[in-house]
Amino acid sequence: MSNDPLVIFTPSGKRGHFAAGTPILTAARQLGVDLDSVCGGRGICSKCQITPSYGEFSKHGVTVAEDALSEWNSVEQRYKDKRGLIDGRRLGCQATIQGDIVVDVPPESQVHRQVVRKAASNRTIVMDPATHLYFVEVDEPDMHEPTGDLERLARALKDQWDIEHITADLSIMTRLQPVLRKGKWQVTVALHKSHTATAHKVLEIWPGLTEDRIYGLAIDLGSTTIAAHLCDLRNGEVKASSGVMNPQIRFGEDLMSRVSYSMMNPGGDKEMTNAVRTAINGLTEAIATEADIRPFQILETVFVCNPVMHHLLLGIDPVELGQAPFALATSDSMSLNARDLDLSVMNENAQVYILPCIAGHVGADAAAVALSEAPNTSEDLVLVVDVGTNAELLLGNKDRVLACSSPTGPAFEGAQISSGQRAAPGAIERIEINPDTKEPRFRVIGSDIWSDEDGFDVAIATTGITGICGSGIIEAVAEMRMAGLVDSKGLIGSSAQTGTERSVAEGRTHSYLIHDASDQGGPRISVTQGDIRAIQLAKSALYAGARLLMDEMGVDKVDRVVLAGAFGAYISTKHAMVLGMIPDAPLDKVSSAGNAAGTGARIALSNLAARREIEKVVREIVKVETAIEPKFQEHFVNANAIPHATDPFLELAKVTNLPDNNFNTKSNDSGDTGGRRRRRRS
Amino acid sequence: MSNDPLVIFTPSGKRGHFAAGTPILTAARQLGVDLDSVCGGRGICSKCQITPSYGEFSKHGVTVAEDALSEWNSVEQRYKDKRGLIDGRRLGCQATIQGDIVVDVPPESQVHRQVVRKAASNRTIVMDPATHLYFVEVDEPDMHEPTGDLERLARALKDQWDIEHITADLSIMTRLQPVLRKGKWQVTVALHKSHTATAHKVLEIWPGLTEDRIYGLAIDLGSTTIAAHLCDLRNGEVKASSGVMNPQIRFGEDLMSRVSYSMMNPGGDKEMTNAVRTAINGLTEAIATEADIRPFQILETVFVCNPVMHHLLLGIDPVELGQAPFALATSDSMSLNARDLDLSVMNENAQVYILPCIAGHVGADAAAVALSEAPNTSEDLVLVVDVGTNAELLLGNKDRVLACSSPTGPAFEGAQISSGQRAAPGAIERIEINPDTKEPRFRVIGSDIWSDEDGFDVAIATTGITGICGSGIIEAVAEMRMAGLVDSKGLIGSSAQTGTERSVAEGRTHSYLIHDASDQGGPRISVTQGDIRAIQLAKSALYAGARLLMDEMGVDKVDRVVLAGAFGAYISTKHAMVLGMIPDAPLDKVSSAGNAAGTGARIALSNLAARREIEKVVREIVKVETAIEPKFQEHFVNANAIPHATDPFLELAKVTNLPDNNFNTKSNDSGDTGGRRRRRRS
Repeated sequence: MSNDPLVIFTPSGKRGHFAAGTPILTAARQLGVDLDSVCGGRGICSKCQITPSYGEFSKHGVTVAEDALSEWNSVEQRYKDKRGLIDGRRLGCQATIQGDIVVDVPPESQVHRQVVRKAASNRTIVMDPATHLYFVEVDEPDMHEPTGDLERLARALKDQWDIEHITADLSIMTRLQPVLRKGKWQVTVALHKSHTATAHKVLEIWPGLTEDRIYGLAIDLGSTTIAAHLCDLRNGEVKASSGVMNPQIRFGEDLMSRVSYSMMNPGGDKEMTNAVRTAINGLTEAIATEADIRPFQILETVFVCNPVMHHLLLGIDPVELGQAPFALATSDSMSLNARDLDLSVMNENAQVYILPCIAGHVGADAAAVALSEAPNTSEDLVLVVDVGTNAELLLGNKDRVLACSSPTGPAFEGAQISSGQRAAPGAIERIEINPDTKEPRFRVIGSDIWSDEDGFDVAIATTGITGICGSGIIEAVAEMRMAGLVDSKGLIGSSAQTGTERSVAEGRTHSYLIHDASDQGGPRISVTQGDIRAIQLAKSALYAGARLLMDEMGVDKVDRVVLAGAFGAYISTKHAMVLGMIPDAPLDKVSSAGNAAGTGARIALSNLAARREIEKVVREIVKVETAIEPKFQEHFVNANAIPHATDPFLELAKVTNLPDNNFNTKSNDSGDTGGRRRRRRS
Repeated sequence: MSNDPLVIFTPSGKRGHFAAGTPILTAARQLGVDLDSVCGGRGICSKCQITPSYGEFSKHGVTVAEDALSEWNSVEQRYKDKRGLIDGRRLGCQATIQGDIVVDVPPESQVHRQVVRKAASNRTIVMDPATHLYFVEVDEPDMHEPTGDLERLARALKDQWDIEHITADLSIMTRLQPVLRKGKWQVTVALHKSHTATAHKVLEIWPGLTEDRIYGLAIDLGSTTIAAHLCDLRNGEVKASSGVMNPQIRFGEDLMSRVSYSMMNPGGDKEMTNAVRTAINGLTEAIATEADIRPFQILETVFVCNPVMHHLLLGIDPVELGQAPFALATSDSMSLNARDLDLSVMNENAQVYILPCIAGHVGADAAAVALSEAPNTSEDLVLVVDVGTNAELLLGNKDRVLACSSPTGPAFEGAQISSGQRAAPGAIERIEINPDTKEPRFRVIGSDIWSDEDGFDVAIATTGITGICGSGIIEAVAEMRMAGLVDSKGLIGSSAQTGTERSVAEGRTHSYLIHDASDQGGPRISVTQGDIRAIQLAKSALYAGARLLMDEMGVDKVDRVVLAGAFGAYISTKHAMVLGMIPDAPLDKVSSAGNAAGTGARIALSNLAARREIEKVVREIVKVETAIEPKFQEHFVNANAIPHATDPFLELAKVTNLPDNNFNTKSNDSGDTGGRRRRRRS
């Protein structure tokens, strides 16, 4: 046993003996303790702060004497005087070991802070990004041993940080000499090393030790919305989140119409590429302003997107994605310079990582959902449904994961719905219908007060009641089904059949009136027979996709369901089940994951191992192509009923009894909209 | 011993036994015989043509029967009918081994053709460039096994060419899908793999098997002239050579004045960078037109240049190169995209390689000279002098190589000379002075006829006699010294002292009249005392640099001298010695290497191993900084005399006796111009 002092680090519990005089930072490094340092132990960055503990620690079997650490030295004292230091803290690079000692590493001194904790999958993501800051002291040039400034910077990084090989683009080279001289041969460099690279790339350089932080963007590039998180690349903190509409909407609401636009208009793909890149530049500017940082501090961006957006972002004509065999130009992950995508607002050397695509219909957004929800690590069989204009579905467990996409159309986002609107203040997002009185109560975005509660009118005074958003229409149709206003075929009953004046005849069909402000010049909000049909089309497509994966897996039920998507978090799982959007499952096994694609992007931004992992997972995922699968049509037709024509939904029956109405007075076969279905993607 | 047929390849002599039915191409590959193929053995590229030999070969110990190869098959026959085939030739991929056979590989079927053969250094350079063409058949996309087109191209290259890892820039990605379909899943790709890269990069892609050839540029980017060779990247053939003036001349004739321009004018470095890049684009266009190729066929460019041009080409402000310690921004070799240098005329994916710099005063041009002349492999001690506005000197042998630069100024290029001009038709390039009559005879560029020969007047009718170029002024001064018109101090004698009316008084000094056409309104061409002083300054700087290297090496003589430089080939070695430009050496040991820097660029373009080699050599070269070496001044002063004040020049004395005149009638010390010397670089 060593006679050297024993050092115990908390919270890691790592311990070891070190010669008296060893700095705490050195001990931490040798033990692999997660203790930060940017300046490399020169007492100027203060990232290596630690809290020594004194007294008796029976748990650890040590007693720490008052003189277990060296006395304050001048470097520490100068730092404390100049910048301040929390009481009890020491600089790990200055304080040296003199006797047995217990050292706590506070969270802010840990590099690998946890940033994403997924309860469902039992995973934690720690910070291990591609880009880090390093402070170095560079040798001055010597005429007698002539080398370039870059080569001396490389040598300093080798000597002081053990970094072997660096590269630098010309924009760095042109600034290197003045920055080195301004910093008096001390500089901070941002080095990027992706999981596939062999060299570290210099992305930015500052004279001296910079006060600047560095940031990354995690961008979920959707057909309709571009959503971005601005994350601190040191600790993963989300500094700002922002979104803009995808300006490509003016070329086509859904993806297939954008592909058509490109086919019909020479140069149309270029127009769309320019539009989306310009929008991303605008979003970058806005999010930097919101977070009060300068755009050049953004050094990395991760993109997740569907294949058509993927190609349009890259400047590749998506025409091949519009026809079988739906060939991607490239499916693997991509590492690029942001400037190659004309992303000129962020740092000119910013690096872009795009997750791999799974197939021509199943993109990097689905890969990001897989990264976030990790079906490939699940013990039980999980169905992950990413709800959007085009839905992506993943089914699997640790043995095997299947994927497909399904063209649900935009109904779930409130489009093609008579009173539909996007989720915005004033939109009805929750609705309940009393099964006895058939009277509705609802809530609108922007207020927590239900429409039959006191104060509702005041609460909505500024927003009004403007329409129904995606989650609202799902609840409305499901509530109508539960309240006996709609039968299992999707037919809305007449007021005679349903016993409520809210059933209003409209030609040969009926609609259900939720809210009427037309006498005050406001909207008349109702659910029409056409709305029900649109929702049936959408949910049938979703369900048929899920069933196809279940066929392929050889199962007729799943253990649990995860609803994801930009508005996945807002969908009531019970109502989704009543509607038959998803296969029957115990309600407590149906959960919402929110914007899992965005979370996946954030994980890939924060952690290099996650990039390696998802690339491997994507290669192993089995793709099921719904467009050519004959059984899809059969599943689609059967799924048209609410909740389903043939599947029993026994779990659903445990929590709700659906009325057994039939409002069709002529035949039992109407209401089948299968023949009207057309393929749609977006 | 094998019973399989024996195959013997000539000229390599490689031999081996192969099973009957083995194609010749397969046998060649297994034996490592240099036999070309672009299509990978599909009988369509015809690069693998071979000539079988029949009969008895006692030398090889075999008899080749008439049926030693398979009969013509339909692929071969179709190729012959369509494109023709030289009598006796077969396609190596189609003809199979049936019995013992002797196979000759003609030069045009060898990949590694010799392109540069250096007699002096006993080296041959074979073609092994970074960029090659590969024909591949790519699998069509399969919906059930979705992968990207790029990934299937990568797999084809792996399967068909054993190429492991490829990358492609977006410009290739955007064209990949249409080209694959146009070529019916057969494409030719140009792949680039530099000696430092881990992956092959796709530079260009053609549908089917392309008829296009691919080219590279070897560019010697000088202060005054930009010279380029356009080389076929398959066989190294120089298709065209061309040059333009460096337009930076308008910012300053020599390098230091360009550095000053940058210091005095904010943005001046950018102006100069734009000027030189624009000129290179123009040169690229011109050379492509001259060779009748399309500029996109140019896939590679190698640059050699001095440090100031190096930085200005890269867009780096050269200000640090203007002052001690002459720090380079970067000294290592560089591999770049041509578009990063705004070189937009050549292929948009063209790759640039820039040789390493040796020191702040000794650039990539000197490295190229070292690559071409290979002093590092020399058994005897060789001095390589690259003559230009700034001279680079290398001294060494296989044990050790030293380098320095010396600011000779532009006199050797005919600038700052009263009748001086650049080397162009009409310029006097050779001159002889009769030591008895003191009468000159000369030759001008554009004619081989001497001025005292019949037909001279006719020969020069179009060009006239316009001035003296660099090699002409060197000969003129040396001839004047040999003819007793100039004494060892450099003083021109009066007509009384020299006995010729061609010595003409001009104020207190004299000039020597070579040609007078002033009565016909033409020029009066003479060598003035000022011209002699300018040449003395230049040659003293050159000699002092050489002496400094000899001091460092600890020698007082060298075994041989190589004169290099754009006009190095035109300098008479004897006259250079008379002048004392170079240290004394046996005249047969003084040779001209022509534009060795340009040759070095061509070698680096043709052969990857050469890049590796020169990078290693440059790291090992010992740099001597003339600017701070106190002995430089002493050497400079002593070298002012013609040929030298103190060094004996015994070898020179064996071939010529220099008159021992002294035209100074006042003191022995005038004519020493050492004090007037100023540093100049260009």
